[in-house]
Amino acid sequence: MRVMGVDPGLTRCGIGVIDAARIHRPALVAVDVIETPSVSAVDTRLGALADAFDRWLDAHRPDVVSIERVFARHNVSTIIGTAQASGLTMGLAARRGIPVAMHTPSEVKAAVTGSGRAGKAQVTNMVTRILRLNAPVKPADAADALALAICHLWRGAGAAGSTPGATKDVDTRQGGGRQGSSLTPAQQQWAEALKSAGTPRRR
Amino acid sequence: MRVMGVDPGLTRCGIGVIDAARIHRPALVAVDVIETPSVSAVDTRLGALADAFDRWLDAHRPDVVSIERVFARHNVSTIIGTAQASGLTMGLAARRGIPVAMHTPSEVKAAVTGSGRAGKAQVTNMVTRILRLNAPVKPADAADALALAICHLWRGAGAAGSTPGATKDVDTRQGGGRQGSSLTPAQQQWAEALKSAGTPRRR
Repeated sequence: MRVMGVDPGLTRCGIGVIDAARIHRPALVAVDVIETPSVSAVDTRLGALADAFDRWLDAHRPDVVSIERVFARHNVSTIIGTAQASGLTMGLAARRGIPVAMHTPSEVKAAVTGSGRAGKAQVTNMVTRILRLNAPVKPADAADALALAICHLWRGAGAAGSTPGATKDVDTRQGGGRQGSSLTPAQQQWAEALKSAGTPRRR
Repeated sequence: MRVMGVDPGLTRCGIGVIDAARIHRPALVAVDVIETPSVSAVDTRLGALADAFDRWLDAHRPDVVSIERVFARHNVSTIIGTAQASGLTMGLAARRGIPVAMHTPSEVKAAVTGSGRAGKAQVTNMVTRILRLNAPVKPADAADALALAICHLWRGAGAAGSTPGATKDVDTRQGGGRQGSSLTPAQQQWAEALKSAGTPRRR
């Protein structure tokens, strides 16, 4: 299975592709950040993003696109641009018949680190280790895109197909989000896989 | 000049095209509402909207697209879907090199009725009269799309190219928005054109 993760944004849109012949050994295919200059008009920036995103879909032909769910209570100054970028990329993927799954930031953090409240450094660290890379993935938007792809691989499409008005954040139900009983089955499997591979999981 | 107006939305996206050989005698080319079922997944709805919008661009080849500017303080339950639909249509138009202009709801109302606080019935009534139609344009989303096109024809592209974060509503500066000194030059010309055409302007 090939998963494309998208961290939507107008100024920086993180995009990453992973392959997973074995679900616990995903491999990096490609990662980048699509940037559009903030001095340009919004329509021009969206047009450039559309072209870049279609080139990525052509080049990598993902089986599924995993994108961050946008909430109305996100940062108000950027929410419109983020929602516009997400709508554009979702529409371009869906018109090709590629399924699109949405995951909340806390779902993504929980999937890759075990905690729904993990910081950016923790996410980057775990993404780098999960994909067995020699150096940390930078910038954060690129790491977030890969985390979205990994999250979808392990959590599945449970979050797909909801309407935007019916969304809810899962921060509250993540509780402390400590490793242990709050791990999803996929995370437990992953933790066990790490253990059996002789790689102690540091927090 | 051919202007396509778009009132973005996921459930109902108003879309209308006008031709204006003479600026004060715009003529209706086509109008419709693109609907996507609210029971479908968001990505599927955006994919269907992308296909429909591209068909409209192919069929009518507008010189410019005029779209409602989306604000973060709009209805929170629908803001994400509206912004996603607007981002998708803006990106699809811009990648073809078609300029996209954004106008606020109050700018549109002021342009077609003389008042930035006009109601839906007033907007529909004026759009119907301006385009010399035999029956009122329905539903409201279709009338709004045509009003956006007319607004752009008369106000020009002054509102284009801003960043989403830098927007501001003009409701406050419209004041009472009464006919008279608060008319824009385009509206004054329009009022005079109506008068000279022997069509008294009723309010």
